[in-house]
Amino acid sequence: MKIQTGYLLTLLLVIWMPVNAQNKQKPLVIEQQGSFAVGGTKATESGSFDLDSALKPQGQTFHGDHAYAFYQIPVKARKYPLVFLHGAGQSKKTWETTPDGREGFQNIFLRRKFPVYLLDQPRRGEAGKSSVAATINPTADEQFWFTQFRIGNYPEYFPDVQFPKDAASLEQFYRQMTPNTGAFDGNVISDAISQLFNKIGEGILITHSQGGGPGWSTAIKNDKVKAVVAYEPYSSFLFPEGELPPPIKSAGLFGELKGTEIPLSDFNKLTKIPIVIYYGDNIAKDPTKIWNKDHWRSGLEMAKIWAATINKHGGDVTVIHLPEIGMKGNTHFPFSDLNNIQVADQLSKWLKEKGLDK
Amino acid sequence: MKIQTGYLLTLLLVIWMPVNAQNKQKPLVIEQQGSFAVGGTKATESGSFDLDSALKPQGQTFHGDHAYAFYQIPVKARKYPLVFLHGAGQSKKTWETTPDGREGFQNIFLRRKFPVYLLDQPRRGEAGKSSVAATINPTADEQFWFTQFRIGNYPEYFPDVQFPKDAASLEQFYRQMTPNTGAFDGNVISDAISQLFNKIGEGILITHSQGGGPGWSTAIKNDKVKAVVAYEPYSSFLFPEGELPPPIKSAGLFGELKGTEIPLSDFNKLTKIPIVIYYGDNIAKDPTKIWNKDHWRSGLEMAKIWAATINKHGGDVTVIHLPEIGMKGNTHFPFSDLNNIQVADQLSKWLKEKGLDK
Repeated sequence: MKIQTGYLLTLLLVIWMPVNAQNKQKPLVIEQQGSFAVGGTKATESGSFDLDSALKPQGQTFHGDHAYAFYQIPVKARKYPLVFLHGAGQSKKTWETTPDGREGFQNIFLRRKFPVYLLDQPRRGEAGKSSVAATINPTADEQFWFTQFRIGNYPEYFPDVQFPKDAASLEQFYRQMTPNTGAFDGNVISDAISQLFNKIGEGILITHSQGGGPGWSTAIKNDKVKAVVAYEPYSSFLFPEGELPPPIKSAGLFGELKGTEIPLSDFNKLTKIPIVIYYGDNIAKDPTKIWNKDHWRSGLEMAKIWAATINKHGGDVTVIHLPEIGMKGNTHFPFSDLNNIQVADQLSKWLKEKGLDK
Repeated sequence: MKIQTGYLLTLLLVIWMPVNAQNKQKPLVIEQQGSFAVGGTKATESGSFDLDSALKPQGQTFHGDHAYAFYQIPVKARKYPLVFLHGAGQSKKTWETTPDGREGFQNIFLRRKFPVYLLDQPRRGEAGKSSVAATINPTADEQFWFTQFRIGNYPEYFPDVQFPKDAASLEQFYRQMTPNTGAFDGNVISDAISQLFNKIGEGILITHSQGGGPGWSTAIKNDKVKAVVAYEPYSSFLFPEGELPPPIKSAGLFGELKGTEIPLSDFNKLTKIPIVIYYGDNIAKDPTKIWNKDHWRSGLEMAKIWAATINKHGGDVTVIHLPEIGMKGNTHFPFSDLNNIQVADQLSKWLKEKGLDK
């Protein structure tokens, strides 16, 4: 009887402790925090500015196409800052509080003593000034995104999904999307982020989804990018001229997936730094008609071909499919999923292995 | 000779100390920080969602018109959080790092132990999902804003202006603007901010410029708004039916300034809380053809009429024209001007007087 009570107490403690640890975090001690615009373009209208007709554009300027960065540097910080770039339809919110109110990678990696820079890419969020015009229409598409981002096949959640199943969390998830204020342009984005690295010095670039493309380009443009971590990149895998693999057919709603050819001299720059790519769960192993699972199958397959190509050229790319290392149920947003501490642990482990957490 | 050297040393210390204090701040100790969407609307397309035609809108939802909030709560925080709402063409960046890289009100009031909530209003910045469509065109208008916001009469800076005169700072100032992603709607904005107060409880609302209108409306909608602080509000002064003053003519580029009539029962709610309104410098005392100085003359005059009306009804509104209390050269953005510590000191003093800093 006494042994059983002791067992029960131990069991209760084991259940209770992580919850308590989550709720009762230590304060964040921030040496410095702030924000700025970086990079961008400037256009000047012809003519000269007339103070008495100041609503006429003649001679006036328009600054746009910059990124917006919010940064925090903890006390006794590690050497390399982590620079976070969101994906399509998202902003820096991606890395902040999760849809169900837990800490995202922003706080998690501040607690792990990394300086953290969160970006709104050019023409998005608080970096909204775009040198090209845009029309924004409210488009009812959230059930598509629920499915595309592998929370489930709407209205069904995947049984093991690492996404909270309450309505309030899903609403927060839908509301964290925010539109382009000008056409997506990977070159404009990587120009601005390259300027960021010129300003802050060497660091590690962490991208999500569509951010993957500008991520590779930034690393090619600027050798201050000491490593790239990409969560679920899809398009924009870059191959040397003459080594482009055949397109991968897919039942995904965006059709077949193609690589992009670039000069070998540019490609080689990606062989100089360690790169890790993560994919979540509910991605098909073999071709299937279930379009979301098949879309990401093509992405994962292309990532593996790309990694093999880079590594053949002397590079260091690792592709980690999370279910293969025992992590089940991750969506397209592993860093905000229910198990995001474990997802962060994987990243910490990789950074340590590569000597990037000094 | 010895006395003179001592005097010189004292003088050097006096000059050197504030600079050093600015550069070598203590770390911020943050008990909690995070972000969320709040308020907003939800629309559902008729029909039913078809997983196999997931790019068709039928049966899909669109969430929009919410505000985005980033909050930080320092350790041993004071009771009332400060909720900051930006003005036209701005985002929460308004309250962050100043154009020349000093700390803005976000950090200044965290250091003074207030919980700080920074908002992107509905249809702006990271709260970009709008239920109404918008077209955004790059418009060369920055020399207009330089002048309208009383940095000077472009290209001249006002001689005493509290704005840095280097090119990099001005570029940062231009780049912190960000466009509407849907039409400005004071009712949508105040609905979202009222929901914020329902979520976080009693607090103090601090508005800038165009944010003034939604600020008053939020205070009418929600009695958890315990005070309103408005920096340079212009339009949307609310008067009880039958007490509307005549419009104030102005050489400003937006023409004459009118008040807005509201039911007395709504107006009376604004008499229940303390309100303070601040205006900067280089505002004309009497009508003038210099349009920026005259624009803000009409705003300041209307604010004084409004304060008198509220106070006649038993309210507590103070209008502070900063030059009248010895603070010279402030622009339309006093909280990020070169003397923003002194501007913050004024606010701290007022909050203390009203018992709002417990």
